[in-house]
Amino acid sequence: MNQNDTIVALATPSGAGAIAVIRLSGKDAIAICEGCFKSVSKSKKLSSQKTHTIHLGHIVDDAREIDEVLVSVFKNPRSYTGEDVVEVSCHGSNYIQQQIIQLFLRNGCRMADAGEFTLRAFLNGKLDLSQAEAVADLISSDNEASHQIAMQQMRGGFSSEIAKLREELLNFASLIELELDFAEEDVEFADRTQFRELVERITFVLKRLIDSFAVGNVIKNGIPVAIVGEPNVGKSTLLNALLNEERAIVSEIAGTTRDTIEDEISIGGMGFRFIDTAGIRETQDVVESIGIKKTFEKIEQAQVVIYLFDSTTFKTQCNQFKVELEKIKNKYPLKPLIVIANKIDKVDDTLLAQMQLEIPEIQLLSAKSGFGVEQLTDSLLGLVNTGALRNNETIITNTRHYDALLKALEEIQKVKYGLDSGLPSDLMAIDIREALYQFGLITGNVTNDELLGNIFANFCIGK
Amino acid sequence: MNQNDTIVALATPSGAGAIAVIRLSGKDAIAICEGCFKSVSKSKKLSSQKTHTIHLGHIVDDAREIDEVLVSVFKNPRSYTGEDVVEVSCHGSNYIQQQIIQLFLRNGCRMADAGEFTLRAFLNGKLDLSQAEAVADLISSDNEASHQIAMQQMRGGFSSEIAKLREELLNFASLIELELDFAEEDVEFADRTQFRELVERITFVLKRLIDSFAVGNVIKNGIPVAIVGEPNVGKSTLLNALLNEERAIVSEIAGTTRDTIEDEISIGGMGFRFIDTAGIRETQDVVESIGIKKTFEKIEQAQVVIYLFDSTTFKTQCNQFKVELEKIKNKYPLKPLIVIANKIDKVDDTLLAQMQLEIPEIQLLSAKSGFGVEQLTDSLLGLVNTGALRNNETIITNTRHYDALLKALEEIQKVKYGLDSGLPSDLMAIDIREALYQFGLITGNVTNDELLGNIFANFCIGK
Repeated sequence: MNQNDTIVALATPSGAGAIAVIRLSGKDAIAICEGCFKSVSKSKKLSSQKTHTIHLGHIVDDAREIDEVLVSVFKNPRSYTGEDVVEVSCHGSNYIQQQIIQLFLRNGCRMADAGEFTLRAFLNGKLDLSQAEAVADLISSDNEASHQIAMQQMRGGFSSEIAKLREELLNFASLIELELDFAEEDVEFADRTQFRELVERITFVLKRLIDSFAVGNVIKNGIPVAIVGEPNVGKSTLLNALLNEERAIVSEIAGTTRDTIEDEISIGGMGFRFIDTAGIRETQDVVESIGIKKTFEKIEQAQVVIYLFDSTTFKTQCNQFKVELEKIKNKYPLKPLIVIANKIDKVDDTLLAQMQLEIPEIQLLSAKSGFGVEQLTDSLLGLVNTGALRNNETIITNTRHYDALLKALEEIQKVKYGLDSGLPSDLMAIDIREALYQFGLITGNVTNDELLGNIFANFCIGK
Repeated sequence: MNQNDTIVALATPSGAGAIAVIRLSGKDAIAICEGCFKSVSKSKKLSSQKTHTIHLGHIVDDAREIDEVLVSVFKNPRSYTGEDVVEVSCHGSNYIQQQIIQLFLRNGCRMADAGEFTLRAFLNGKLDLSQAEAVADLISSDNEASHQIAMQQMRGGFSSEIAKLREELLNFASLIELELDFAEEDVEFADRTQFRELVERITFVLKRLIDSFAVGNVIKNGIPVAIVGEPNVGKSTLLNALLNEERAIVSEIAGTTRDTIEDEISIGGMGFRFIDTAGIRETQDVVESIGIKKTFEKIEQAQVVIYLFDSTTFKTQCNQFKVELEKIKNKYPLKPLIVIANKIDKVDDTLLAQMQLEIPEIQLLSAKSGFGVEQLTDSLLGLVNTGALRNNETIITNTRHYDALLKALEEIQKVKYGLDSGLPSDLMAIDIREALYQFGLITGNVTNDELLGNIFANFCIGK
């Protein structure tokens, strides 16, 4: 990855749309575009235009006009990457996009690697590393909670918290290292009481951030919900009913309808991942008992279990339901369990009363009519610990940050142990340096090529 | 469709990309966006910015920041629609796009109908009707030829030709109608010789344009090529080989690879639609003979026929091949026929020589090694009449234009007949008016709501 190259990529999704945007960044971005651009006002030169201005004209390959376009000019350092950037807004035909990109490639650009625009923004100091990572999270956010966390991280809340702790630790580190120079005189430049206080504070913050990863991970990946129930109890109708609640909100926007039922459904701004299971009916059948084993594995992985049955079969299967519910409760006493009687539109009130008597925690539902669906979504949301989210606390969602924080905590605890046991300064300095290194990895104060490669390879091309 | 509303739509394709562009147009576009926009330089107001400028800031819903965006401002009449236009370039997450569009909807926009931005451009005189139609053609163009025709039409070459003829005809029409006022005096204001000359010229141009529709249609929809051959002769390998020729060109651009073999392949800038057939082997089998009937129907529809056989079966099937080729030639003596011997890598030179002796027009090919593929693409391109395209003549691709031109020609021929037979001015005036009406329909000088509705309903939303 040569940082001196001028890079080009499609910044908008491929496919049919009214327009597409092609982005160039690098020292020759404006010159390369100027060489292929014929302004409507003949004499206009892109290179003599102000930053943040838009120009109408044609992209031309010698005499051949490829498209009428709008060209946006951003001059360094006032651009996303911090370099000169040009964005060409053309008609949304794949053919035109290809022609324009190929033209730029022939004129001295190269294709951008995945995430290379954001990598350059990081290298040019426009973003720190955790902010750059938040860009990818923001693009992939598909519900309110994940969006909110990514926005917070992009605003730099998390980095500045880490950076502040790192700076304080750095101050003490330099004092401790100074002591090494005077080792024979046995002086203490670093106030041990203050230092102990700082170490306690860092430990507290690290633990809070590490704990937040559990909820952060759930928010980022969706909360896994296992639906336990036999075939034909109405699992897919229930998922449709849940999806429809959400659809009602988005239906007025064209292009957002989903034709297939997706397992991941956003409810009240939280993502839920519904996992279908085969039920856990007692059986002698070997194949079926493998199915039951799998069901229990899925329940194990889930954070919430929905036990779903068909009301019309209640009379004959009541005891079976009770046995199965007991089994789940015994095996997973701490796992939230929601019991749903579906198809209640098909049974009479007497049976409904009897069902509620036999299984008191039952929730009545008709996926067909929509009755009870809202109660179910309320139950699901009630189970999510959104406290941290509501209080606008920093939440960790990134595995890389989680690992670095865990390692930093480990080192800080070594430092604390060293303080308690009167470890010599030179040994303590090593532990502090390691903790500083881990903090630096998060914000990008410390980087190496391999780390950057790993992070930006997960981006889409064009960002 | 209220033209006073401010409209909003996603202008880029839906799906994952680095960025997405949301477009607003109408008298409140700038005010609505300003109400939801917090510039990075706090005091900046969008409404006091110059046209064609770009502004960094956040889209906010009260206190909640939805995204960091770039806002482009275009002031009427210097915009695509001719109205005030704002384009918001946000991060490419579906969730963010929805949130921003919903925010604008709540603040007084409504969702744009399909093609409504371009409709407004037409109503505000930024484009004539055939240019507006070319926008949709341009977006859907997927090869060089269809792209070139759409660009030509958008530049207004076709409209200006029609408009010029219409104006000349209009001049004569007013002179003829003037004669009606002096009907009793039997004067002729319109010089009949000049008029006859104009009518001849119009007839000539109309006929040329109408004739161009055949090639235009082929360019727009692809040239249908029937591949006749039994199973396992290598049809799909051949299509892959043809596709690879093209792929080699586009492979350096990410996001353009096609995972499935498509029937439509662009060769040398022309689209070819390959139609698979079941072959035409003689048989007693009822089912198979239905297959043969279908094969002939497909050959009927195709403009080119490729007869493909497997070289390794030549020894045993030579006579059958000859009989089948004769059959095709007899049935469609004018249809271009290309005979391909595939899998030549599997036979020896003696057999190759024998094949060329038995079927002189044979082309040798190995779809596997790529040998002969270029000769085949040359043959296909040689069969396309690209003369008109090369000479940069106006080519009609739009069925609506074709119909209007046919009707205009019909009326012009009535006028000519009237001139020849000395028809009274009042009757001739009716025919001239009808011809003028048909011309006007093409450029949009004459419109009605139904016509506009039909045209713009075929657009994508956001354009």
